[in-house]
Amino acid sequence: MNSLSTVSPSIDPRKTAPNRGLSDLLEPYQSDLSQVREMIAERIFRQEGFGELLISTGGQADWKEWDHPDWLLRLLESGEDSASKSTPLRMAEHLVSRGGKLYRATLILVIARTLAAENPKTVTLASALELIHLATLLHDDVIDNADLRRGKPSMPTLFDNAPAVLMGDHLYARAFEMLSECEIMRIVSATCRATSAMCRGEVEQLQWIGRHSIPEEAYFRLIEMKTAALIGCCSESTAVLCGREDLAEDWYRFGNTLGLVFQMADDLLDFTSDPETLGKQTGSDAADGKYTLPLILFRERIGGPEALKNFLSEAGGPEEIADRLREEGILDQVRERILELQKICHEQLDRLLKDCRDDDSLEILHRLVDFTGSRTR
Amino acid sequence: MNSLSTVSPSIDPRKTAPNRGLSDLLEPYQSDLSQVREMIAERIFRQEGFGELLISTGGQADWKEWDHPDWLLRLLESGEDSASKSTPLRMAEHLVSRGGKLYRATLILVIARTLAAENPKTVTLASALELIHLATLLHDDVIDNADLRRGKPSMPTLFDNAPAVLMGDHLYARAFEMLSECEIMRIVSATCRATSAMCRGEVEQLQWIGRHSIPEEAYFRLIEMKTAALIGCCSESTAVLCGREDLAEDWYRFGNTLGLVFQMADDLLDFTSDPETLGKQTGSDAADGKYTLPLILFRERIGGPEALKNFLSEAGGPEEIADRLREEGILDQVRERILELQKICHEQLDRLLKDCRDDDSLEILHRLVDFTGSRTR
Repeated sequence: MNSLSTVSPSIDPRKTAPNRGLSDLLEPYQSDLSQVREMIAERIFRQEGFGELLISTGGQADWKEWDHPDWLLRLLESGEDSASKSTPLRMAEHLVSRGGKLYRATLILVIARTLAAENPKTVTLASALELIHLATLLHDDVIDNADLRRGKPSMPTLFDNAPAVLMGDHLYARAFEMLSECEIMRIVSATCRATSAMCRGEVEQLQWIGRHSIPEEAYFRLIEMKTAALIGCCSESTAVLCGREDLAEDWYRFGNTLGLVFQMADDLLDFTSDPETLGKQTGSDAADGKYTLPLILFRERIGGPEALKNFLSEAGGPEEIADRLREEGILDQVRERILELQKICHEQLDRLLKDCRDDDSLEILHRLVDFTGSRTR
Repeated sequence: MNSLSTVSPSIDPRKTAPNRGLSDLLEPYQSDLSQVREMIAERIFRQEGFGELLISTGGQADWKEWDHPDWLLRLLESGEDSASKSTPLRMAEHLVSRGGKLYRATLILVIARTLAAENPKTVTLASALELIHLATLLHDDVIDNADLRRGKPSMPTLFDNAPAVLMGDHLYARAFEMLSECEIMRIVSATCRATSAMCRGEVEQLQWIGRHSIPEEAYFRLIEMKTAALIGCCSESTAVLCGREDLAEDWYRFGNTLGLVFQMADDLLDFTSDPETLGKQTGSDAADGKYTLPLILFRERIGGPEALKNFLSEAGGPEEIADRLREEGILDQVRERILELQKICHEQLDRLLKDCRDDDSLEILHRLVDFTGSRTR
């Protein structure tokens, strides 16, 4: 389930032992990551029976079947009549499996170890920020379900969305509750800033949908708000929790840069992956009117928004679009940009961790930076 | 704009000077309430231009015209081309005017003064908890727009709801940011609990929609989560902010009881008010399949859920329903219940504030309890 194990060959091998995969390297974190999974599940389902309450309201929601991690399957099957698997449980599977990589939690746990701070609250922080991420996924679903290109909503209906809105709010509340358990106010306010940025990013993204003229700067501003702000917050909050408030801003900048890498790689995957590996249709960004860096660079190559519009409307399908971008060298150009930012991340880490003597943790963190830019899903 | 000034004659006059209205009594708080309004507007519109961003996304949303307070009108007109008044501004008007009573903020300011603590953060706390309330209003709108009785969504469409979901999330983030500025973790966690309770209340409310058999206990559990939890949190947080953490639980219980009074009075108004005073159609709860205390008590009188269902389907309209409830003495019975809870509130205050020597503040707080149960809108 953990897609971090599907890492590509390291781009910048640096201190990495050549024959160790990231999954081997992450072995020391598996126990903490299990705790994160349990903590998330506990907060989603905990005593008030939020899950059960959703049964009768969401009973008509047509949640798709999702791949889900084994641990969740066991959890769900243990206490449940499998014949009547209810909507809230499906919702929970859905959202936990979408967030199944636990990328943000992993980053937090790895940074904490480079800072040599075995703070038990690290797991709480990691769980809280994963919950924030899950909450945004749920609300993004509500937003994305609106077929905005034609200005009309698509199904699923509002009725289906009521549980998603409420479950998202519930997860936000639970996440902030866990953050308050970390007992450091700066972590709460940092997360507020990130959450607010994500809202604005989503709003600004809606604004650009279907507009072939989206400037490159707007794209970067968008992904900075949508993705990089929260990953920056993960990095900053870990530093604060581990007693390095003096370097919190630098850690924010590191996480922020890493977040840009994360989203640029994500946007690239929409062209380079295949549906089976990616778990969703490739080419869906362009089909949804979201023009990301590859198409922005391609547009500049072929002469502007009108040319891009014509190309997309005449292209046979996602493969044809991807092939053309590959032939034109656009995909390599995007990879170059990603590499540049990864290089900055490595340099930031060298500065921030020059006193770190834990070579294993250091290596893992650098490999995580590599993984972020070269993942296959 | 301030409906607190439309207070009915005090039910329990106590220490109240007979000829002073609540609006006169609240005079000392007007300056603080103005600050609350400015702080709320500032957070809604502040630098990132969240408002402007919404323009192009929400442009098709059909927001109704709303009555709005003068101060907001001035604010909006000062910087805006009034010919192109934009959707986000309408949204902001809508939500600020719906929350225009500033009931929660007023409660916080009044309690703080009885505790003799002139803490400048009181205004921040009051603004933050009003913002939480506004955020829930926005999301409730999304939920309520689903016509759940027939299992199908009504218009407005999902497209209209995207800005409401995002604006709500934005306000939550801003509210927690302000709470973190109060620098007391217990206030953050108390608000998380209240927010989570409101989500669960909304979910449970959806569950009971259209069900004539809703038990009285379910009704009280619902309004406890939907309304009383946040008002309890206002009261608790004020005590904590003012250095009375030792009495925080008792203050929570006071606010919680007061919140029940607030919602019971609200549900009663749906039968006793007129559309002009109330600002919305009366009888809308029953029309939406939400059966509140008056109909629950009436149901027990006339023989059960089937009888209630038949009565409602045969009744000519809201007036006929209200007249029948009045004739049967049901409305007076609800008023009795409200009075009982108000009496408990007064007693709680007597215990909590037995050392308070500020007779003016004490009087205002007791009058606020009276107002809560007898307001006309």
